[in-house]
This record gives sequence, C-alpha cells and structure tokens, in this order.
Amino acid sequence: MAQFGTQLSVGDAIAKASALLVAAGLEEDKAVISARLIVASDRWGIGSHGLMRLPFYLERILAGGINSKASMKLVTDLPSLVVFDGENGLGHWQLHMAAEEAASRAKTTGIAAVGIGRSSHCGALGLYVWPMVSQGLVGIAFSTGPAVMPPWGGTKPILSTSPMAAGIPTTPPTIIDLATSAVARGKIAAKAQAGAPLEPGWAFTKDGLPTLDAKEALAGMLAPLGGVKGYALAVLVESLTGVLIGPRLAKDIPDMFASDQATLPQEISHFVIAIDATRLSVDGENSRIDQLPQIVSEAGGRLPGSNRVNPEELDGAEIISITQQVAEQLTLWTTKLGI
Amino acid sequence: MAQFGTQLSVGDAIAKASALLVAAGLEEDKAVISARLIVASDRWGIGSHGLMRLPFYLERILAGGINSKASMKLVTDLPSLVVFDGENGLGHWQLHMAAEEAASRAKTTGIAAVGIGRSSHCGALGLYVWPMVSQGLVGIAFSTGPAVMPPWGGTKPILSTSPMAAGIPTTPPTIIDLATSAVARGKIAAKAQAGAPLEPGWAFTKDGLPTLDAKEALAGMLAPLGGVKGYALAVLVESLTGVLIGPRLAKDIPDMFASDQATLPQEISHFVIAIDATRLSVDGENSRIDQLPQIVSEAGGRLPGSNRVNPEELDGAEIISITQQVAEQLTLWTTKLGI
Repeated sequence: MAQFGTQLSVGDAIAKASALLVAAGLEEDKAVISARLIVASDRWGIGSHGLMRLPFYLERILAGGINSKASMKLVTDLPSLVVFDGENGLGHWQLHMAAEEAASRAKTTGIAAVGIGRSSHCGALGLYVWPMVSQGLVGIAFSTGPAVMPPWGGTKPILSTSPMAAGIPTTPPTIIDLATSAVARGKIAAKAQAGAPLEPGWAFTKDGLPTLDAKEALAGMLAPLGGVKGYALAVLVESLTGVLIGPRLAKDIPDMFASDQATLPQEISHFVIAIDATRLSVDGENSRIDQLPQIVSEAGGRLPGSNRVNPEELDGAEIISITQQVAEQLTLWTTKLGI
Repeated sequence: MAQFGTQLSVGDAIAKASALLVAAGLEEDKAVISARLIVASDRWGIGSHGLMRLPFYLERILAGGINSKASMKLVTDLPSLVVFDGENGLGHWQLHMAAEEAASRAKTTGIAAVGIGRSSHCGALGLYVWPMVSQGLVGIAFSTGPAVMPPWGGTKPILSTSPMAAGIPTTPPTIIDLATSAVARGKIAAKAQAGAPLEPGWAFTKDGLPTLDAKEALAGMLAPLGGVKGYALAVLVESLTGVLIGPRLAKDIPDMFASDQATLPQEISHFVIAIDATRLSVDGENSRIDQLPQIVSEAGGRLPGSNRVNPEELDGAEIISITQQVAEQLTLWTTKLGI
C-alpha cells in the first residue's frame, strides 16, 4: 500500500489517495469522494489538477490552511438559492455536495444555485457539473483562485484564471471546462523550459505589457481569453464568487503551491447553477438535444468534453500515469503519515 | 414628425420609432418599450443594433415574419423557472418582460430563470440585464440567431454569434455584452470595404479553413472567440436557447436582413437568469461589490460597460446620430405607413 508507482490502476490510486487524506484527518466519506475526483482528473488527462496536487493539499491540511474537520455550515436557505460556509475544508467534497444540492432543488423549482464561501481549491472545475448533468440537468460552475490576470489595459493582477464549467445532458454529456485566461500558467512554464517564444495574446510582463518572452511572462501576468471579452467573462466569474459570496477576493487568495502560505486558509468561493433541461422546451419537444451530437458531427466537429467519463463511474481497472516526481512525493507522504 | 434627420434627440427618436411600430400594428405599450430599447442601442454607441435595424423589423412585421399581435403565452410555470411562447413577436419587448419576470421571482426564491421560445431578434443583448441589475440583482442573458460559426475544426455553420450578456450591480452597473464569435460580421465587412486584411483568428473560408481575406470570410464563416474555448461557450449558449428551449436551432433560423425571408418567423429563443446578489454573501458582508470599481481602477483598468446608461433613464434631450442611409429608409417608412 505504501508505494506509488508511475503507473497505477484507477482503483488503487483512489484507495491510496483516500488513505492519505484519512491519515491527514479527513472523515472517510469526504476522503473517498475527494480522492475519486482527484483521480478522475488524471483519468481525464488533466494531470495538472490530479494526483500531482495531492502533496500540496496534504501539506496545507497538516499546516492548517485546509481544515480537515470542516463541515458545510448553512448560511442562506432560500427555495432556489443556498449558501454554505465551507469552514476552510477541501474544495473537492464541498463543491461535489453543492452540486448535488443544486441538482436536487432544481428538480423541484426549475433552477437552483448553491454558493460556498470559505472553501479551498477544488481541482478541475468540470468535475462538478457531473452530479447535475448525470441527472439530466444543465450544470454550470464558477470558481476563483489567486490573482494572475490584470483588468484589460491594467498593470496589477486582480483576477484569477476565473474558470467556468458547464455540462449539457447530451448523450454522452457535453462537458465545457475552461479558464477565461488565454492559457494556463503551466503552458507558459513549458515554453520557458523549452526556450520557445509564446504566442501573441498569452501573457503580459509584470508591468502589463504584452510579451512573447516566457520568462518575462512567468514573472508577469496571464492575458485574458481573446482579449477584452475574456476579461469581461473573468469579471463575471469573480463577481459570482469572490465578490458576492466572498469572503476573499482573488487578489487576496494565498497560493496553494507556496509552502510559506500553507498555514493560510485560501477562503476560496465556488458557485454552481443547476437547470432542469427537460422543462425548458417551448414546444414540448425534447429531441433536439438528442440530435445535437449528430448535427455537430455532420458539420465536421464534436461536442466539447464528450470523451470525459463520469467520475462516479470510473473503471477501477484502467491505468493512469503520474510522473516519477509525483510518485516519489506521494510515497514520501505515505511514510510521513505512517500508512 | 415624418422626417428623420441624421441627428436627432433621444426623445424624438423614441417617439418616431414608437409611432412606426404602432403604425405597423404593435400595441402602444409594446411599441414604446421596444422603441426605447432600440434607441438605447444608438445611445450606447452600438448603432449596428439600433435604429439601423428598424426598417428590417418593420419589413418583417408587414410581411408576417414578426407577429405584431403576439402575446407571451405561458408554457411552463415552476417556482423559479418560467417558459413563454413568444408567438413570433418582436424580441425587444418580449425579452424585457422576461427579464422583469425573472427579477421579480429571484427576489423570492434567490435565483430564477425565464425562457422565451418562438421570439425574434432582440437587438443588443446587454439591454436586457438592466431590469435585473437596476434592482440589485445579477442578470445573465443568452440568445441565438442565424448560424454563422462552424463547430471547432468543422466545415459547416451550425452556431450563431451566440451572444451572452451579464449585469453586475456595482455602482455604476457593470454590463458585460459579448458575442462568442471572435468579431462581428460588420467588422469583417468594414475590412472588406477598406481592402484590408483580417487579423488571425477572425474568420474561416466557406470550407472551414482559416483566412485573412475579408471577401473570402464574408462568403465563409466567423471564427469563435479565442479558438476552441469560444466554441465551447457558443455550445453552451446554443444549448440554453435553440436546443433546450427551441423550437428552432441556429442552423434553421432565417436571416433578418434577407427580404426574401421576411415572411418566415425566426423562431428565436432567449434565456435570462436573475440572481439575488444581496443573498450570496457567506459572511453577511456586502461591501466587496462597492469596492470593486475602485480595485479595478487602482489596477489600471475599468469595469466593462460602466459607461452604458440605464435604458429606462435615457435623457430625452441627448443627441444621437444615424447614417444618411438609415435616416432616408426610416423617412420612407413613415410615408409608407401613412404617418
């Protein structure tokens, strides 16, 4: 049990990740849900949001930046809008519960939203539309994080990568999952390592000037998706999370990768909306959604994320890969936590 | 009353536009609301969605493509989700009513949405977040239209410019209003007229290949905002409108500028969401939204659309400009309708 190899089965990975979270203090059910979502990211091919992050979550739990004993405290309870205080718990199980709550209410009222304030990083945002989309609902999710983007034309970072995700209940489900920054920081880091120039529109220097120099960009800021429009979308995301839910704006959110900030709760907020897709039709016809994949296919394309499997129905026997470095870090953590 | 000049006061423009719509058969109250929203676009500097379009609306009304006697027929009535059949009425007053209904319900249930199927073009989508934002709510709006974009990597148009808008109740309100296409068709037409090349990422040929040739692009398709991410957003917009509300997908929506299609109802769908911004806070603190404009300003930027005045509080004495061609067309219509 104690060793992590670079190749491991999904089932083994979930069991091991879960054991680590339990050893760090999480309750069993919350650990299992979180481990499954973390491993689902690796299975989806988004290793940057999968097991690679687990050592940082564990470090923050031990340092106190993530509260292993957190519950979801009900703050606001309207028929279609619920707000929870996450008590600085791990984002994964919290946002998953929020999505389930939104789905349940939307089936009665038609649309429902759940906000969580005072939570933590939740991994890949697209994971959380599943509890909604798997029940035939449209699910939309927003989250925030540390500031990495300036306002359009500006010189200081005040917006996170401002991710949004959405699930449309086509068969298979359409999963939209994107940052409103032009690219992720990891893509810039890879260019820096390769000594390659950036593409125009990816990044700014620390003074807010456009740059193609990857190193200047790493010391600088991310650019919004498609220029001013991406900035506008990021403002919407930050408004629905940090500004209106709070308590913390992106500009004040600690970096989860910085050890010296591991004692500081991130106080991140998340927001999900569930919409009963079966009740929207003006003409009682619900077959258009069944036709959509074929229409897109006949036009030469495919629907976004239609290759992303349901995190609740992962095949435990499938094999995922992690880097040697991540395998070693996780093995160290199993020793450190006495597993 | 019968003449339109190229310079006219907002009050005069509303009165004249309203008289034209009444003469074409609309009821007074619906004509006045619609005229105000049309003129507000000109006042906002979006002439492409203002009085310039009125001759086409009038043509469609007389030809039967827009039903001047339409009402909003209630199709679905859940506590937080309402769907109306627009009976092929003009989009402006219909979407305005939908936004008012969403706002009213959100104040009770926390969040509410209203869909309209079988409606028509509504002008600038950002107009419709005002009935929500002016009451302290977050408002989000989606609409569809004729197909002009292919799926990512595809070769046939199946998506409209897929606009979305949002209002955040800052002071003054933040108004987000964007197409998820990289640019509007008008911008490409202007380049064609000037004989100038397009910027990369704006358009495709009719076969779906990237092009910098404005004429090829006009015969081709628009590209999505920022590539595949814009495509994903457009899929969300089309799903929440044409696919789930219906009855018509973007690929089947008639062009409002084509005289030979003026008899055909567009059967466009719209969707609005209102969220009670005052109930989202996790810590009872609602001052972050008051600080936002200053935070953005200190970072060297400004919030989107903060110069857009409330369409319900236009200053009738202010002067707007229309082109000579639009003035002549509108003057012809006053004669034609016997005003």
